[in-house]
This record gives sequence, structure tokens and C-alpha cells, in this order.
Amino acid sequence: MAVSNIRYGAGVTKEVGMDLQNMGAKNVCMMTDKNLSQLPPVQIVMDSLVKNGINFKVYDDVRVEPTDRSFMEAIEFAKKGAFDAYVAVGGGSTMDTCKAANLYASNPHSDFLDYVSAPIGKGKPVSVPLKPLIAVPTTSGTGSETTGVAIFDYEPLKVKIGIGSRAIKPTLGLIDPLHTLHMPDRVVANSGFDVLCHALESYTALPYHMRSPCPSNPIFRPAYQGSNPISDIWAVHALRIVAKYLKRAVRNPDDLEARSNMHLASALAGIGFGNAGVHLCHGMSYPISGLVKTYKAKDYSVDHPLVPHGLSVVLTSPAVFTFTAQMFPERHLETAEILGADTRTARIADAGLVLADTLRKLLFDLDVDDGLAAIGYSKVDIPALVKGTLPQERVTKLAPRPQSEEDLSALFEASMKLY
Amino acid sequence: MAVSNIRYGAGVTKEVGMDLQNMGAKNVCMMTDKNLSQLPPVQIVMDSLVKNGINFKVYDDVRVEPTDRSFMEAIEFAKKGAFDAYVAVGGGSTMDTCKAANLYASNPHSDFLDYVSAPIGKGKPVSVPLKPLIAVPTTSGTGSETTGVAIFDYEPLKVKIGIGSRAIKPTLGLIDPLHTLHMPDRVVANSGFDVLCHALESYTALPYHMRSPCPSNPIFRPAYQGSNPISDIWAVHALRIVAKYLKRAVRNPDDLEARSNMHLASALAGIGFGNAGVHLCHGMSYPISGLVKTYKAKDYSVDHPLVPHGLSVVLTSPAVFTFTAQMFPERHLETAEILGADTRTARIADAGLVLADTLRKLLFDLDVDDGLAAIGYSKVDIPALVKGTLPQERVTKLAPRPQSEEDLSALFEASMKLY
Ligand SMILES: NC(=O)c1ccc[n+]([C@@H]2O[C@H](COP(=O)([O-])OP(=O)(O)OC[C@H]3O[C@@H](n4cnc5c(N)ncnc54)[C@H](O)[C@@H]3O)[C@@H](O)[C@H]2O)c1
Ligand SMILES: NC(=O)c1ccc[n+]([C@@H]2O[C@H](COP(=O)([O-])OP(=O)(O)OC[C@H]3O[C@@H](n4cnc5c(N)ncnc54)[C@H](O)[C@@H]3O)[C@@H](O)[C@H]2O)c1
Ligand SMILES: [Fe+2]
Ligand SMILES: [Fe+2]
Repeated sequence: MAVSNIRYGAGVTKEVGMDLQNMGAKNVCMMTDKNLSQLPPVQIVMDSLVKNGINFKVYDDVRVEPTDRSFMEAIEFAKKGAFDAYVAVGGGSTMDTCKAANLYASNPHSDFLDYVSAPIGKGKPVSVPLKPLIAVPTTSGTGSETTGVAIFDYEPLKVKIGIGSRAIKPTLGLIDPLHTLHMPDRVVANSGFDVLCHALESYTALPYHMRSPCPSNPIFRPAYQGSNPISDIWAVHALRIVAKYLKRAVRNPDDLEARSNMHLASALAGIGFGNAGVHLCHGMSYPISGLVKTYKAKDYSVDHPLVPHGLSVVLTSPAVFTFTAQMFPERHLETAEILGADTRTARIADAGLVLADTLRKLLFDLDVDDGLAAIGYSKVDIPALVKGTLPQERVTKLAPRPQSEEDLSALFEASMKLY
Repeated sequence: MAVSNIRYGAGVTKEVGMDLQNMGAKNVCMMTDKNLSQLPPVQIVMDSLVKNGINFKVYDDVRVEPTDRSFMEAIEFAKKGAFDAYVAVGGGSTMDTCKAANLYASNPHSDFLDYVSAPIGKGKPVSVPLKPLIAVPTTSGTGSETTGVAIFDYEPLKVKIGIGSRAIKPTLGLIDPLHTLHMPDRVVANSGFDVLCHALESYTALPYHMRSPCPSNPIFRPAYQGSNPISDIWAVHALRIVAKYLKRAVRNPDDLEARSNMHLASALAGIGFGNAGVHLCHGMSYPISGLVKTYKAKDYSVDHPLVPHGLSVVLTSPAVFTFTAQMFPERHLETAEILGADTRTARIADAGLVLADTLRKLLFDLDVDDGLAAIGYSKVDIPALVKGTLPQERVTKLAPRPQSEEDLSALFEASMKLY
């Protein structure tokens, strides 16, 4: 397993100009989104660049939950700028866009689908060196500052897919809890659910030694290798933080302790799932986001319909873990206990139900929409949702229990209403 | 913080030839010691190299607990061979020797003291690229497969010192529990004590935000940055494994579960202390090893007097933690509890004593020599031991409590007899 460099602490972002100088950068691209471009995290980064005499250009057209088109616009900007380093200041949307821009600007003659994961893209290995990229997360969710993954909505198929390669992992992540104080409550909640699912899914993913086929050469090992004793440590630790701090972080914007801990948990869970992988909540979330009709997410300053990523993963979680628990019931029960369930009298056969109830209660307490129905889906959409899940093999095959199309249908159906 | 790549699992060593091929290596240097060169781990590596058509030369003159002289011999060999990659198969002695050989062969015109830590060496930053180095640990102790540290006995001063740079961190660690089945019981015990102290010291080290002076530029951050929320996770987890498995691993050579877990713990604690640092047990151990008179360590197949590193660190641990506990008593009590102490009725003011008693009991149960007196030291040696500790500032200043020379004297004196 591998971990990128991260630096954690209040105020570390102020050093970003020095870091870039140490890397020898002379012409830097700073990426962010329009909303963040007005907020302190971006200002602090710009001040540090100016103070250290670093030339830079700002790209603030990142789309919240990017698409192939928005990726391509950022790539064009990067190609024209001939930058020698990148700084991404924002949530997963910004960090992922910046990773893609760096990748394709460093490979100007490649086709966009070359590096997109199979089966939709060609999944080519990256063989050219990229420029240094410093990621400064401002949400507490994706862990993208630690992963070699960039996710986007592929509009021709209305489904989210990704680029996955160790080569796009940021050179350095600056994890500065002060940035989290500006997040509105739904962004805290939804990005926190992303952490929750990264941890739960990587902990319950198929163990690395049960994955098949076993690659004939270590170079063919996928980045997502299944649960393993090291990613387990990250996942469990992140889950403990979520259990202790998520509600506090959502409810109180001034609770620096809670928000700091969630910010760290996001990176920990990122390192965990970046090595172990995620499975069904994520696999099923991609069509849930991709097929969005009219749902407008509260607190997200965007002008397009949007099911935020964290919401799209967590809404199926009660159904998913009820389904998967028969494979590793002890792990499911253990996570329920970490999340606050009293498991002393629980039967092991009920592990999935216990975890599902614990999750439902958490979502209810945090005012989450009541299932897929509440965000605009109904029974008639299920075939399309299933169809959109099928190409997500890269993750769905890491689920501890294999799924037929009927199973997927039933999981979507069970997720229509939660409470 | 940063972590090198590691791969963990029974049999992963068989892939080493493919890994080298993937790195494009054509002329490899394999380093090991004379004893290991007759044992299966080395045979497995050689078979894999042959099978993958990799040219290689073997250097099996690694000295167990290397010296400046033995490092220089290995460096000479490396310079002559013009190798394009290295494989180290052995314990810390082998991995550290190989790191030094790679470093100086890649910098053929540098002086030996250039990269040795100050104040004895010049502590220059490494600016040339090194060759890939794959580390295959065969002990469960140093975690050297994950660290940018190489330790040797500096004979002119009779003290152990080190080279510390992220540049010498192995490219890949292959952590193969099958190798541990060959370790004699004292090697398991002593290298296990090294894991124990790495975990205890990094968990109780001065927290990163209390270290001073605060570096003016992130490039000057030392590799040992003090305890922090991420290294804490590694340390606590490693400690839990030590608590559960060390005794079993020592007592039963066939207990693959126990030995596998200790092998993983060694890497985890290595990642922890490689970022947080160690403090007094290690700082005081270097003269304990360096000034050895006639002590011959059981189970170490060497023809020179030797206090194995793990033994030299653990013998002072009861005194050290009694001394440091007044700074972070909760952490000291917590580690005692992890190691099996019943702390329900313990007073927080007694945290150090409780941990010390717990350590003494563990050492007694594992038949460890009764203190520094049992390995040949007496009161008259204390001034020399103190003198040898003073230059170890790099680590001793990470102790939670500052130490005067009188304090160090008292700590050595209190370590003369344990039971
Ligand atoms: N690369 C990965 O490993 C990975 C993992 C999970 C999810 N993702 C992807 O990441 C994206 C979601 O990212 P996200 O959840 O981090 O949110 P985001 O980047 O989409 O941002 C969400 C909203 O919050 C605002 N915002 C962000 N930080 C703020 C702050 N500190 N103060 C005020 N407003 C702030 C943004 O402007 C935006 O309006 C999705 O596209 C998802 O698929 C990537
Ligand atoms: N670089 C670091 O981060 C770091 C950390 C701690 C210690 N160290 C250093 O590492 C050295 C100690 O290394 P160590 O404790 O790993 O032991 P070692 O390498 O000195 O080996 C000890 C003995 O065990 C034998 N041995 C090793 N593996 C075996 C196996 N699988 N089967 C049978 N015999 C085996 C060796 O041949 C040798 O005789 C010291 O010099 C110490 O200062 C380095
Ligand atoms: Fe996610
Ligand atoms: Fe050590």
C-alpha cells in the first residue's frame, strides 16, 4: 500500500508558497470553484503565493461535481498555460478536476478516454511524468488529497466514472482544519457521509487474498486491492472519529475540535479506501448522481440539479449493508457498535439489520432526505439505475457478496424510503 | 507524513524479480549477512531473480550491527558494481547497510560524514537521485523497510549514530511473514522489543506542535516531527499487536499467526516512529551498544561482542517511562493498559510506575537479562554512557521531558538492575 505526503495542522496552508518554491515551481495553476474563490481558503493560498513571489494563474471554473465537459475545459486551460505545478483549493470537485488537468496537459496527445477506467474508457496505464500537484481540501469528505482517483459525470451515458492511477495522486496534501469553518451544514453532512461510506465499504470489502484473479505480475495489481490489515486500521480509526464528531461538526459551525477531527478522518478514510477500494454504495451512487432530474441540493451554490456525492452514497447504505452482512457479519456488527449501537444482545445473524438501523438513525438525526424517493426517483427509474451500476465493476466486484441484476434492483427499491 | 510502499503477505518475496524487472533493473546488488545467506529468504530472492532473468551480484559481508567500517566496505562494493538497483534481504543491519551503499554509490565524491546526522556528521541534505532499493525484512523489529534511517556504530567515538534522509527510504518493502519462521528466539524477542520501544517512544514523544523552534520553511522540517494524530494510530496499533502476540511469537517458532502479526507490527511501528521519532530509550541505547565490552548475545551468530539493538533499547525502558510520565501521564497509563496492566484503580500520578512495572514483568517473563549490570556495565561506566548520549540530540530532544546530565546518570543507574 502507499500513502501520499500529507501535512496536517491549523495554518499549514500558509506555507504553500514555500512548498511550491521548494519544488522549483515558477508558473503555477491554482484551481478552485466560483464559490470558494470568494472565501478565505483561496485568499490564504493566493497571499502565500504572492508573498513567495510565485507567478500563478487562477482557474475558478471548476464545476461542482464535474463532468467530462468541465474536465475538458480545465484541461484546455492547463494545456495553454504550460504550468510547472498545480494547486487545487477546494473539495473533491476541485481536486479531481485539477488531477485531470495535470494528467492530460502532461499527455497533450492522448484522447480523453485513454485514461478513463474500463469498460467505458481504455484504462491505459500512465507512463509520462506529471507536474507536482498540491491539494488543499476544504471539505471533509472525499479524501481526494490522498487518492489516485478523479471522478466525473460522463454525460453521454449519464453516469459517474473515474480515472484511477497512482500517477495522479497529489504530491502533497495540506490538511488545514481552519478551512472547514466556512462549510455550510449540508456540505459538512454530505461530505461526512462520504467519509462514513469510504470507511464502511473499505472495511467490509472483499479481503485482498480472496480477490481473483490473482495478478500474474505485481504491476497489474489494481489500486483497489481489497480490504487488508493496513487499510483496516485507517478505516476503523476514521469510523471512530465519524461516530464521535460528525453530528457535532454538522450542527455547530464553530466546533473546531469536531470539524478538525472530521477533516483528518476524511484523509484517513481516503488512504484506507485508496488502497482497499469501495464497493456497492459507491458503485450504485454513480447512476444516482448521473441520472439526477431536478433535485437541488440545499447549501450547494450551483445552478444545476445535483445530488451531492456524499448523499448519493449514503442513501443506499442501509440496504447495501443488510445485503452484504451475511458474508462478514462480525465486521458489520463491529462497525455498528463503533457507530453507537448496543450490540451486547445482538445475534450475529442480525448484523446487517443492526448496522442498517444504526445508519438510518444517524441519517434521521441529521435531517437527511427520506430515501431515493425524496430526491426524485421512483420505481420506474430502477432499470436505468441498475443499468448505470453495471459498468461500475471496478468497485462493485469488491463487494463481499456478488450481485445479480435482480439484487441490484432490490437494493435500489429498498432504498426508496428509509424511515 | 509519508509512507513508503509496502506489500504484505505470505509469499510476496517470490515476486521480487518481477518488481525489479518492472523497475527496469538490469544489474542488481543483493545484500545480506553471512548467516542469512544460508537460509531460505535469500534463496527465495535469488530464485526469483534467476527466474526473471535478472543479473545480480551478492554481497553477504553485512556486519550484524554495522559500523562505519563495515558500511564503507559495502559502499566500496556498490561503487565498483555500478548497480542500477538494490535488494536488501535481512534485518535492520542489512537494510541499513544497503541504504548507505546506495546513497554513497550514487554520490561517489561525497565524504562519509557528509550525510551522517549532526553534530557528529554534517547532516547535508541529499540532492542526487538514488537507485531503487527493495527491502525484504527478515526480523520483526526495526521497520527499516519503511524508514529513511540507517544506523551504524561509529567506532572512533564508540557510539551508534545514523544517517537520516527521506531519500534513503526503500522504494518498496516486501513484508513476507514466512521469513520470520526461521528466526531464533532471542532475535524474535530483541527485535520485538525494538517494535515495543518504537511504539512507546513515538506515542509519548513531544507533540509536533510543541516542538521548537518551528521551522521557517517546510523544507527544514525534520523527518522526526514529534507525535501527531497519524503516527499515534500506527503506534497504538503496533502496541496492541505486541501486547497480543510478542510472547507467543518468541515462545513458539511455528506460531505463524503470532509471527506474522509481529512482522506487520514492525512495519507499522516503523511508519509511526519514522514520522514521529523516538526519544530516550533509543538515545540512551546508542552508547549502550557502542561501548559493549564482552557481552555475547545468545542466538546471534556473530564473532564479536554485541548488545543487540532491541535489548539495548528495552533495558532502560522502565526507568525512562517512570521519568517521562509526569509530562503525559494519560498516555503512559493508556499504554500500560494496552500492554495488559489493570489500570482501573491506578492513580494518574503513578502512571510511570504502572507502565514501568508492566514492562519489567514482560521482560522477566521473556527471560531478559537483569538490567545493564547483567550485560557488563557497572556504576563506573555511567559517565561514559552519559557522554555517549549527549550527541543524540536528534532524538533525545523529542523526549517529553528535558533531561540534564544528572537525569541521564540517574536513568542509567536505575537501569542497572530490573527485577
Ligand atoms: N477522488 C476521490 O477519491 C473522490 C472520492 C469521493 C468523491 N469524489 C468526488 O468529489 C466530488 C464531491 O466533492 P466534495 O464532497 O468534496 O464537494 P465539492 O467539491 O463538490 O464542493 C461542494 C460544495 O461545497 C462548497 N465548499 C467546499 N468547501 C467549502 C468551504 N470550506 N466553505 C464553504 N463552501 C465550501 C463548494 O463551493 C461546493 O459548492 C464528487 O464529484 C465526487 O464524485 C472523489
Ligand atoms: N533503520 C532503522 O530505522 C532502524 C531502526 C531500529 C534499529 N536499526 C538498526 O538495525 C540493526 C538491528 O537489526 P535487527 O534487529 O533487525 O537484526 P540484525 O539485522 O542485526 O540481525 C540479527 C541476527 O539475526 C539473524 N537473522 C535475521 N533474520 C533472520 C531470520 N529470518 N532467520 C534467522 N536468523 C535471522 C541475522 O543473521 C543476525 O545474526 C541495528 O544496527 C539497529 O541499530 C535500524
Ligand atoms: Fe466517495
Ligand atoms: Fe530501534
